[in-house]
Amino acid sequence: MSGSERRRPPTIHDVAREAGVSRGTVSRFLNGGHNVSPGAADAVRAAIRRTGYVVNRHARSLITGRSDSVAFLLTEPQEKLFEDPNFNVLLRGCTQALAAHDIPLLLMIAGTPAERRRVVRYVTAGHVDGVLLVSSHTGDPMAEQLTKAGIPVVASGKPIDRSGRTARIAHVAADDREGARDIVRHLVSLGRRRIATVAGPPDTPGGVDRLAGWREVLAEAGLPAGDDLVAHGDYSRDSGRRAAAELLERTPDVDALFVASDLMARGALAALERAGRRVPDDVAVGGFDDSPAAVAGLPELTTVRQPWDRISSEMVRVLLGLIGGQEPSAVILPTELVRRQSA
Amino acid sequence: MSGSERRRPPTIHDVAREAGVSRGTVSRFLNGGHNVSPGAADAVRAAIRRTGYVVNRHARSLITGRSDSVAFLLTEPQEKLFEDPNFNVLLRGCTQALAAHDIPLLLMIAGTPAERRRVVRYVTAGHVDGVLLVSSHTGDPMAEQLTKAGIPVVASGKPIDRSGRTARIAHVAADDREGARDIVRHLVSLGRRRIATVAGPPDTPGGVDRLAGWREVLAEAGLPAGDDLVAHGDYSRDSGRRAAAELLERTPDVDALFVASDLMARGALAALERAGRRVPDDVAVGGFDDSPAAVAGLPELTTVRQPWDRISSEMVRVLLGLIGGQEPSAVILPTELVRRQSA
Repeated sequence: MSGSERRRPPTIHDVAREAGVSRGTVSRFLNGGHNVSPGAADAVRAAIRRTGYVVNRHARSLITGRSDSVAFLLTEPQEKLFEDPNFNVLLRGCTQALAAHDIPLLLMIAGTPAERRRVVRYVTAGHVDGVLLVSSHTGDPMAEQLTKAGIPVVASGKPIDRSGRTARIAHVAADDREGARDIVRHLVSLGRRRIATVAGPPDTPGGVDRLAGWREVLAEAGLPAGDDLVAHGDYSRDSGRRAAAELLERTPDVDALFVASDLMARGALAALERAGRRVPDDVAVGGFDDSPAAVAGLPELTTVRQPWDRISSEMVRVLLGLIGGQEPSAVILPTELVRRQSA
Repeated sequence: MSGSERRRPPTIHDVAREAGVSRGTVSRFLNGGHNVSPGAADAVRAAIRRTGYVVNRHARSLITGRSDSVAFLLTEPQEKLFEDPNFNVLLRGCTQALAAHDIPLLLMIAGTPAERRRVVRYVTAGHVDGVLLVSSHTGDPMAEQLTKAGIPVVASGKPIDRSGRTARIAHVAADDREGARDIVRHLVSLGRRRIATVAGPPDTPGGVDRLAGWREVLAEAGLPAGDDLVAHGDYSRDSGRRAAAELLERTPDVDALFVASDLMARGALAALERAGRRVPDDVAVGGFDDSPAAVAGLPELTTVRQPWDRISSEMVRVLLGLIGGQEPSAVILPTELVRRQSA
């Protein structure tokens, strides 16, 4: 039986017959591949190609009772979505990765307790099949709440629970500590000796792991890494400006600054300009993210590239796996040092 | 029977008894007030107050089969959401207006044909009760498509169908023509005599009605209003810059510019600066929207305020009415001239 002889569109039965497997195996393959051997998966893939089978998501959702949609849930105030370019980049990547599976993305914003309550109600009523949870504060109670309600959830960034441990929630993150180590090593290699840092909030991986990376490298190099060289921001541009001003006031002889996000680094550059310090001559500045903020002004930032495309495609892959019945997993992706003008 | 004697939470039956109306009347009142006389509505309102009845949306949605959610559907590419501050303002207003009814907002973006198809599939499957349709291109086929599928839809801006007529779709809009007339009259009152315009695309109300307002006032004042004084943009900053440069090239003696959006006006200001024209001394500039772009740089823009708060609250009011069974309506709201530095 060849595809060309058939007039009606091929069905899941045709695929099963062609592959020599059961209909249930094809169904499991289509739903994420849980409990399908690599050999069977190959056979199904080939059969789909040969029969020209196209997944009809609408028909499928009538059978499975699924909504065939995924929420991109931002647990931050709405303003953050528009201020921080990381969210825009991640949203676009996830939309594209889902589009390849013909799945629509719903953006939900839950920045207040009332919004969180409404989102939980909507999601647990079965209107979405899973949640891509996006926040700078990955200690977020939403992840646990939704997971406990049986909703597949993948967090962007390492989720930290209240006791500071990594929570058992599927997540995809860049290697924050190694990324921070790379750029601080770079600042040391430039001959800088008073390297301060603007860290993120302590309930975020950027606030914990990037700070730890900074401290480790300075300790290894025998350079000072005391608390007088640390100021905290909240990832907004303005908080970066304030934190840098505070550091300049406290330690005027600082000759380098590692700032835990590019947007905060833009604020720090404004503070340095106001204080009359030249960048990188007087103070070298390193950022983190390689977001559009890194090149949104002069000097362009030397920074640590988060692999946004891979983060979003991996988040979608892990989420579809969870929806298909797989166990949660954690994916940690390498970062890359990007040298530009500021250090 | 008073509220204090009762231990269990008051029900819709208690409200009906207290108001002396049927349970169906209370239900219709709660679902938008369709077919409820003003007298009965007053009685129900008073009974709700006296009994302390609280709408339990979750319980209700189990009964009504509704999702108790509303989509904010942007039929533009994702980038527009982040570039054009109007969408941010409208999104916040709609979120707040819906929050007062304890209804979550889902943001959906449909900038491509595939995205539109997915959104229609999701919405028509009953996962949302209605759609707030937001676009600069209100001739958008989505409005008609969703309305024909029986989905309550309210558009922001006057929907124009393919033949250039106002489509029969519920909508809320500012009075574009009157707003344009106000600011062009202001430019004339400043003694300007060569008043050019950067118009929006011809398939948008801003492209049609604001241009018409400009032409009318100039004709009334006996001033030139030919096509050599018109250039078109697409509401992006960059298109405003290009259109203004084109006008300066074509009619170098221009002494005022009416730009059909603040974001385009920011671009036009950049073109004027590059051409060495002082604003407002050489060329007065008027914008439209009073969006955050109006005050995002110097000079601050003289512009036409769209009543965003009222637009969003009216959109939500009309949509909840449609969901409750009311007929579609159109709401046109007055604008206001805001004088700042540019004219």
